Amino acid sequence: MRVLGIDPGIAIVGFGFIDKIGSKLVPVQYGCITTEARTPQEERLKQVYESACALMDRYKPDTLGIEKLFFNRNVTTAFSVGQARGVVILAAAQRGIPVMEYTPLQVKQAVVGYGKAEKRQVQEMVKMLLKLSAIPKPDDVADALAVAICHAHSTVLANKINGVNRS
Amino acid sequence: MRVLGIDPGIAIVGFGFIDKIGSKLVPVQYGCITTEARTPQEERLKQVYESACALMDRYKPDTLGIEKLFFNRNVTTAFSVGQARGVVILAAAQRGIPVMEYTPLQVKQAVVGYGKAEKRQVQEMVKMLLKLSAIPKPDDVADALAVAICHAHSTVLANKINGVNRS
Repeated sequence: MRVLGIDPGIAIVGFGFIDKIGSKLVPVQYGCITTEARTPQEERLKQVYESACALMDRYKPDTLGIEKLFFNRNVTTAFSVGQARGVVILAAAQRGIPVMEYTPLQVKQAVVGYGKAEKRQVQEMVKMLLKLSAIPKPDDVADALAVAICHAHSTVLANKINGVNRS
Repeated sequence: MRVLGIDPGIAIVGFGFIDKIGSKLVPVQYGCITTEARTPQEERLKQVYESACALMDRYKPDTLGIEKLFFNRNVTTAFSVGQARGVVILAAAQRGIPVMEYTPLQVKQAVVGYGKAEKRQVQEMVKMLLKLSAIPKPDDVADALAVAICHAHSTVLANKINGVNRS
């Protein structure tokens, strides 16, 4: 089962593909899609969409985990992040890849075991769980991998694999 | 010059195509794309995207005017609206259709001549300017036509038609 985790943004979209083999998590590929601030927004959205499509076509994830909104961000940011998120979700929907959303609290809970964990703790756990030599940079990449881990561990996903109905 | 106006939302996306012939504005087609609340969001985004693509391919607008965010809406709404907006802008970008954004203030200013105009006044002016027999329903459609009118009247667009550089 291959899981894609996404941390959406307009300037940087972090992504992380991990394989869940039994109870083991193996990193496949991770990094970020970046767009230039001086590029018109429609072009940036197109770039994010096209990169997301190319990545999904190349690494063929079975499912996508994506971070839910941050309530502490402002409306303008939410709007921009929402737009980038929309085109990534669209790319998944067009490929029949199911999408699950997780709040930052759920991600921290799944990765560190504590919903109020510090960013640094989450990053250390990502490094440890995936046996990486260093914490992936920028933060968006580590965040995307954290969502992927959370998604790989989720009951919903486990039930899905076992053929149990989600509802 | 054919202008498309969009009022984005996740449940309802209003659209309005109008032709600007000299100083005359002629309505071509208007209506809304609706999606069901019980449908998963990825499917709804796909439906919005596909409908937007089909409309753009059928009515071939030269340019797209779209409403900028409403600051009075909450973060969750901004996020959802942003997602829907993202896939519509993507559809335009993929077709090389330039996108311009307008705040509600700019739209009111352009349509009624007064930035603090009431919704009803805007709707009445849309009806009058486009010589419609009634105010289009739901509100999202009238709003989309208002954005289209604003865009058709904008200096940027006028300069573009005359070959003047936007920057």
